[in-house]
Amino acid sequence: MRIALAQYNYHIGNFEYNTAKIIRGIHEAKSRQANLVVFAELSVCGYPSGDFLEFKDYIDKCYRAIDEIALHCQGIAAIVGAPHRNANPKGKPLYNAAFFIEEGEVKQIYRKGLLPNYDIFDEYRYFEPATEFDIVSYRGKRIALTICEDLWNLYDNPLYTQNPMDRLAEKGADFMLNIAASPFAWDHGGERKNMLSRNASRYRMPLFYVNQVGAQTELIFDGGSMAINAHGGITHEMESFTESMLVIETDEMGRKTGIKPSPEADYDKKIENIYKALVSGIKDYFGKLGFSKAILGLSGGIDSAVTMVIAADALGVENVLGVLLPGQFSSDHSLKDAEDLAKTLGCPYHTIPITDITARFEENLKPWFKELPFDVAEENIQARTRAVYLMALSNKFGYVLLNTSNKSEAAVGYGTLYGDMCGGLSVLGDVYKTDVFGLARYINRKDEIIPVNSIIKPPSAELRADQKDSDSLPEYDILDEVLFQYIEKRKGPDELVQMGFDKKLIDRILKLVNTCEYKRYQTPPILRVSPKAFGMGRKMPIVAKYLG
Amino acid sequence: MRIALAQYNYHIGNFEYNTAKIIRGIHEAKSRQANLVVFAELSVCGYPSGDFLEFKDYIDKCYRAIDEIALHCQGIAAIVGAPHRNANPKGKPLYNAAFFIEEGEVKQIYRKGLLPNYDIFDEYRYFEPATEFDIVSYRGKRIALTICEDLWNLYDNPLYTQNPMDRLAEKGADFMLNIAASPFAWDHGGERKNMLSRNASRYRMPLFYVNQVGAQTELIFDGGSMAINAHGGITHEMESFTESMLVIETDEMGRKTGIKPSPEADYDKKIENIYKALVSGIKDYFGKLGFSKAILGLSGGIDSAVTMVIAADALGVENVLGVLLPGQFSSDHSLKDAEDLAKTLGCPYHTIPITDITARFEENLKPWFKELPFDVAEENIQARTRAVYLMALSNKFGYVLLNTSNKSEAAVGYGTLYGDMCGGLSVLGDVYKTDVFGLARYINRKDEIIPVNSIIKPPSAELRADQKDSDSLPEYDILDEVLFQYIEKRKGPDELVQMGFDKKLIDRILKLVNTCEYKRYQTPPILRVSPKAFGMGRKMPIVAKYLG
Repeated sequence: MRIALAQYNYHIGNFEYNTAKIIRGIHEAKSRQANLVVFAELSVCGYPSGDFLEFKDYIDKCYRAIDEIALHCQGIAAIVGAPHRNANPKGKPLYNAAFFIEEGEVKQIYRKGLLPNYDIFDEYRYFEPATEFDIVSYRGKRIALTICEDLWNLYDNPLYTQNPMDRLAEKGADFMLNIAASPFAWDHGGERKNMLSRNASRYRMPLFYVNQVGAQTELIFDGGSMAINAHGGITHEMESFTESMLVIETDEMGRKTGIKPSPEADYDKKIENIYKALVSGIKDYFGKLGFSKAILGLSGGIDSAVTMVIAADALGVENVLGVLLPGQFSSDHSLKDAEDLAKTLGCPYHTIPITDITARFEENLKPWFKELPFDVAEENIQARTRAVYLMALSNKFGYVLLNTSNKSEAAVGYGTLYGDMCGGLSVLGDVYKTDVFGLARYINRKDEIIPVNSIIKPPSAELRADQKDSDSLPEYDILDEVLFQYIEKRKGPDELVQMGFDKKLIDRILKLVNTCEYKRYQTPPILRVSPKAFGMGRKMPIVAKYLG
Repeated sequence: MRIALAQYNYHIGNFEYNTAKIIRGIHEAKSRQANLVVFAELSVCGYPSGDFLEFKDYIDKCYRAIDEIALHCQGIAAIVGAPHRNANPKGKPLYNAAFFIEEGEVKQIYRKGLLPNYDIFDEYRYFEPATEFDIVSYRGKRIALTICEDLWNLYDNPLYTQNPMDRLAEKGADFMLNIAASPFAWDHGGERKNMLSRNASRYRMPLFYVNQVGAQTELIFDGGSMAINAHGGITHEMESFTESMLVIETDEMGRKTGIKPSPEADYDKKIENIYKALVSGIKDYFGKLGFSKAILGLSGGIDSAVTMVIAADALGVENVLGVLLPGQFSSDHSLKDAEDLAKTLGCPYHTIPITDITARFEENLKPWFKELPFDVAEENIQARTRAVYLMALSNKFGYVLLNTSNKSEAAVGYGTLYGDMCGGLSVLGDVYKTDVFGLARYINRKDEIIPVNSIIKPPSAELRADQKDSDSLPEYDILDEVLFQYIEKRKGPDELVQMGFDKKLIDRILKLVNTCEYKRYQTPPILRVSPKAFGMGRKMPIVAKYLG
């Protein structure tokens, strides 16, 4: 049998667009002599659809889209992902399902059994887990069709109490097919390959895997669809972050030699993948919302420089406007570094000094501030004045403001709400400062695009005289390691001390992280590239008093 | 048996505080000759604890708190709510549990079977649902102990496929005991009484119900703990929004006549309850974060007036600073109305004109704005300049800025990001404009506290000449009805048209709501008083294209 794996980019709720894309895919697959074309999990409506799934109209539209798609399945079968109504009045009203369509009709519906409900996933909010699983029979083959997490129950300490693939294997199958909506995280590609390879080895069957690509606000789907032989060797791998279709002859899988997944990707590969993910994230945020132009504040520092390069890659240099907003404490080299970057890239830039406005604000506040010393109030006036300018240009000309804060700053609250924390999208909010340096080196791997001075100078917010980040924060290499253990690895204070970190330092950092929840609550959506990003996947109460 | 119902206010993660409060409760109950004292669901750690539940240290602290509490259970038994580790390596690592403690020891652990995972609830994220349920035997009584949602599976179309209370009833019990963390919504008190009354009638047993009070960021727990006789009549009801303890003799329940819940509360009661909930929400947001003083912008309009009155009630008039920030388009009556309000209430106020700053911003932007017409860019400069002043005062003096936007505005995006959408907490963000009028009338029921002019004048943002909300929005009574059907009732466009609303109007309003998701993403936490508030309980994708 010839199977076409369609690794596509869908748009949530855009039924016309998704349906047309799926129908084009069916015709392309047919023209390439495929017998079956496979689209990703919830491809009909997009993933994640959120609470739109609670609307009857939304589900009706999914059903109508499937009817329309079915008309095109003539001489070829298709598998598409969509919600399916639960006929049983007990339990959640929907299943997360895969529709097997043949000869113009839905012939079989497979329902997902293992619903992820952790980190960014909340499938129990909408879906009932299935407990019965059937083989799809088609053209003499028995297909063990599953959906995403259904294959993620192999380890000793699983999240789930059932294993759908065990049930399907008992019934006998020729190969496995898994449709997914599995978002990128820098450590996830390796995990995913491992898990899929182990499934193929365990059940001694070839496995075909179809993931989606493209970003949906903060979630970036990297694709990486693949075929794996019955020994767990990867025989085909589709290019990440790219839409494409791959046609494979299933009967030839036995003769294909595959590559077993290697245990660890290196640091350079991690940074390269993060770079690609962020480009894809910006591209789709703008594309799917119908915007084309970005604006950002250029400070001369490394964060705004890296953000600008990535944005220029995603949107084109002519579509990224940098704005230099020098204040009272901005250094000359900052201005020069920012200008150099814009010139090297070929991006337009404006310069608007903020000093007259900030002086006037301070003057007008004198009757209340009196002789009180300069503090965070005056620092923030500078950052917020910059935001007023950036947003004014954004509102007047239709730019989307890009936020340039990194994850280290976001973690410890080193940023001004309604100031540098503004933006429609946070590009680096899930990238620790040490990895921002990694991205800068990656960007400069051939030529000096980001001025070396932006990379080597000590980081500073330049909101008071001779300020450096290290005045109030630990050095970034230590800070980032503690943050990683606390945020990504969920290590508590005792565990961190056991790992050798200084108790006082731990207490200070954890307190900063926990007491700044209120700031992160109001930040823009953050492109997710790690296994634990701030935002939808990390839910922390604001009024708590725990380690803070 | 004498049971003490402890309706208390807990603080998430504050183990020292919660444990001390529970221990004091045990001693008070004992001094009042109670045999058993009952605390609310997850009282040990606070509800909702969010992802803190993923930290070993956090669960360790829950266990240590229970050990400490147990030492005080001498001559009295206690029931407290806390997470319990799942000994089975399969499934989620925790249960949501009730610990029955007697003679210094945990004697029995009941685990919740029905885990809510909708709206603001996400218990499947952390907890495994129990499937076995046992009776607690104590002093010759058989107690059917359950947790919150465990009693919410009586109707024909339940969310759950099992019913723990059916299992417990089969085993035989003398009375039911339910511990809850059931947050306020204006329509929920009635539903709750109905559901509990129906349980009592169905199982023909008295029912004792303990809910918590107090707010945890956006969620406001109203208490309303109660006792119900075996005929479903409410015999005791504890005062809402107030900490207290009630001691009841279980053997006397048969002789108590109770009141069956009435079907509908009237509009005045709804508004009064919302008012009380908002006072409680502000009080705890400040109290639990360690703040005492609020600041807000006073426009002379009804939203900021109502917000100020509620804040003054929660924090004391001397702790609420109003700031009048007249701009180019502010009317004289607005200034006067705002001043009158502050004076009547006795709150301090400042006046800071914004015109010199906004003029300077516009002047400095001339090289780019050129002769382009005045539009939303200039409007927003005014709102954002106000925010810079408010935040400067907040930063300098430790005020928390209160956001004054209402739900109607938040729904259709009628507000300026980083301008009037700023704040640490949104007071009215879950109150439709028509109900804001209701709150104003409630506040003025005896005296004219809010100037009548603020109530009767046509709402206006005063960001351009002769502007009125109705220039760009439908009249609020129509808008609010459509929003309610779409947001609270999840009615789609076809259903709304069938209800008699104009198709064009529906399309326009739904498009506004859906395309403004990006704005609401960055708003402050909103005190939840409705069954569907913006924020944690409503998850909508930003990049979607559905009805927008």
